Amino acid sequence: MTILTVGSVAFDDIKTPKASAKRLLGGSATYFSLAASYLAPVRIIAVVGEDFSTEDESILTDRGVCLAGLERASGETFYYSGEYHLEISKRTTHFTKLGVFENFSPKIPEHYKESPYLFLGNIAPKIQMEVLSKIKRPKLVGADTMNFWIEGDPQGLTQVMSNIDILIINDSEAKQLTGEINVVGAGEALVKRGPRFVVIKKGEHGADLFNEGSYFSIPSFPISAVTDPTGAGDSFAGGFMGHLAASEDYSEGNLRKAMAVGTVMSSFCVEHFGVAGLLHLTPDDFYHRFRELRKCSQYSELDINFIPHRS
Amino acid sequence: MTILTVGSVAFDDIKTPKASAKRLLGGSATYFSLAASYLAPVRIIAVVGEDFSTEDESILTDRGVCLAGLERASGETFYYSGEYHLEISKRTTHFTKLGVFENFSPKIPEHYKESPYLFLGNIAPKIQMEVLSKIKRPKLVGADTMNFWIEGDPQGLTQVMSNIDILIINDSEAKQLTGEINVVGAGEALVKRGPRFVVIKKGEHGADLFNEGSYFSIPSFPISAVTDPTGAGDSFAGGFMGHLAASEDYSEGNLRKAMAVGTVMSSFCVEHFGVAGLLHLTPDDFYHRFRELRKCSQYSELDINFIPHRS
Repeated sequence: MTILTVGSVAFDDIKTPKASAKRLLGGSATYFSLAASYLAPVRIIAVVGEDFSTEDESILTDRGVCLAGLERASGETFYYSGEYHLEISKRTTHFTKLGVFENFSPKIPEHYKESPYLFLGNIAPKIQMEVLSKIKRPKLVGADTMNFWIEGDPQGLTQVMSNIDILIINDSEAKQLTGEINVVGAGEALVKRGPRFVVIKKGEHGADLFNEGSYFSIPSFPISAVTDPTGAGDSFAGGFMGHLAASEDYSEGNLRKAMAVGTVMSSFCVEHFGVAGLLHLTPDDFYHRFRELRKCSQYSELDINFIPHRS
Repeated sequence: MTILTVGSVAFDDIKTPKASAKRLLGGSATYFSLAASYLAPVRIIAVVGEDFSTEDESILTDRGVCLAGLERASGETFYYSGEYHLEISKRTTHFTKLGVFENFSPKIPEHYKESPYLFLGNIAPKIQMEVLSKIKRPKLVGADTMNFWIEGDPQGLTQVMSNIDILIINDSEAKQLTGEINVVGAGEALVKRGPRFVVIKKGEHGADLFNEGSYFSIPSFPISAVTDPTGAGDSFAGGFMGHLAASEDYSEGNLRKAMAVGTVMSSFCVEHFGVAGLLHLTPDDFYHRFRELRKCSQYSELDINFIPHRS
């Protein structure tokens, strides 16, 4: 079943301790769409400027992503420049030029209004709500957010939280949003605020899934050298939502598989610069990594006796 | 089979944001022994001062821990005073009085010299080597270390690493010791330095097991409010080594179960102040938590098709 996503399509300059690259196609909607495209048809609502070329476009259309909702505005595409440090989770922003994204007002093509799956990327809560209000209620709505909105529009965010099914959020933001000091406390608190499922992304420590009365934790796929962590969280969300849209099964067991699909997609993403790792996956690549990831966390029941030993 | 451990027996003053307690029985050998005592007979080599009372002693002997190797020296027992902050992984040390531990020279009772399992707690590498050289080579030797020895005696530590089977170490120390920036990189590097197995403890993020060509990751048991994290790592090591000593099976599958046993023991530890959580466990408590922990990480193979979708 089709997934609609709303978010940013951008250009990124990325520098890491080992390499750098300029004007890479990026943005949350880009990473999300490419990862999800291996599982389900994807539609994008986003805005780009006049500098967005047909080559840029074809990176998405080659993966079958529908760009009917990609608005071309006069001006420049959102441009981000940043640098990762040796401790790869730390990032310095050199500049953020919002360009046409600054006045983004989503225009929704008529045929997008019946989209069974929706993912609200990390944009202003009021735009997330606007999209939700303009389309038929999808079967499942996921959303992301970030510190900027937690601080800047907490009320808008509260409204979003009570209108979505799944919140997918970073660990530091989950703690900030709840005031809790550990991930488990934050996840349990967030489940009480509206979303039926809460996914907390923990970078190299994997991701956790919270559901009323149930907790699941999955490690990240073991990669000793990450090339470029940009887009890891959005690729995770794309794989996760893509699996749910493909399977249409919202059971706990299937959500856990979706966590693994998301983890696998983000592992392909971080092995290469920009979106390169998400462009040419084969079913073999994917299944092999899914099985390898599963091996990293499975173990058997105890079969020996636990003896309260006393001499 | 019996486990011998060498380490500290100490008194701790512990303050957390919610409570505080003074002169709690603590030290790495204490936590290790209590956790391991549920699985195998335990012997301690350590030193205490004249202020160590029969009440302190009985906390260990009530759990069947053999104290024939616990030396009573003239002077005071190692005394630590520290405070945990809201971010519970951050700790401020108020004072550390080494007391009789400063000149600790392990005295090994004759009947301890044939101990099939050995755990070298977090003490000076030269003392760890001294103990190893004075006893018959055990079937399995585990060891812990810390930043103080990584900086203070890197050569001694290198020697220890090439004489043990299992290194059990914190994530920050694993990164410091190897210069790697992520846990997977650190674990893979450490396996090449001698120990057949490397366990990296990650606090709220669980623990990882590295073995030549194999990687396993287990989450921590989900506890939203940790009462006192003191001893979590030593309790983990006690459960881990205790399970191996009880089962005498060093297969990958059984080491994974040992990781779960260690995780369960550390979860009981952190729920209460000091060692209180480790004193009265029942088989039901233990098995229930083992099963609950296992549920937090298990998931099934994919049964739907991964379709490289193109419209």
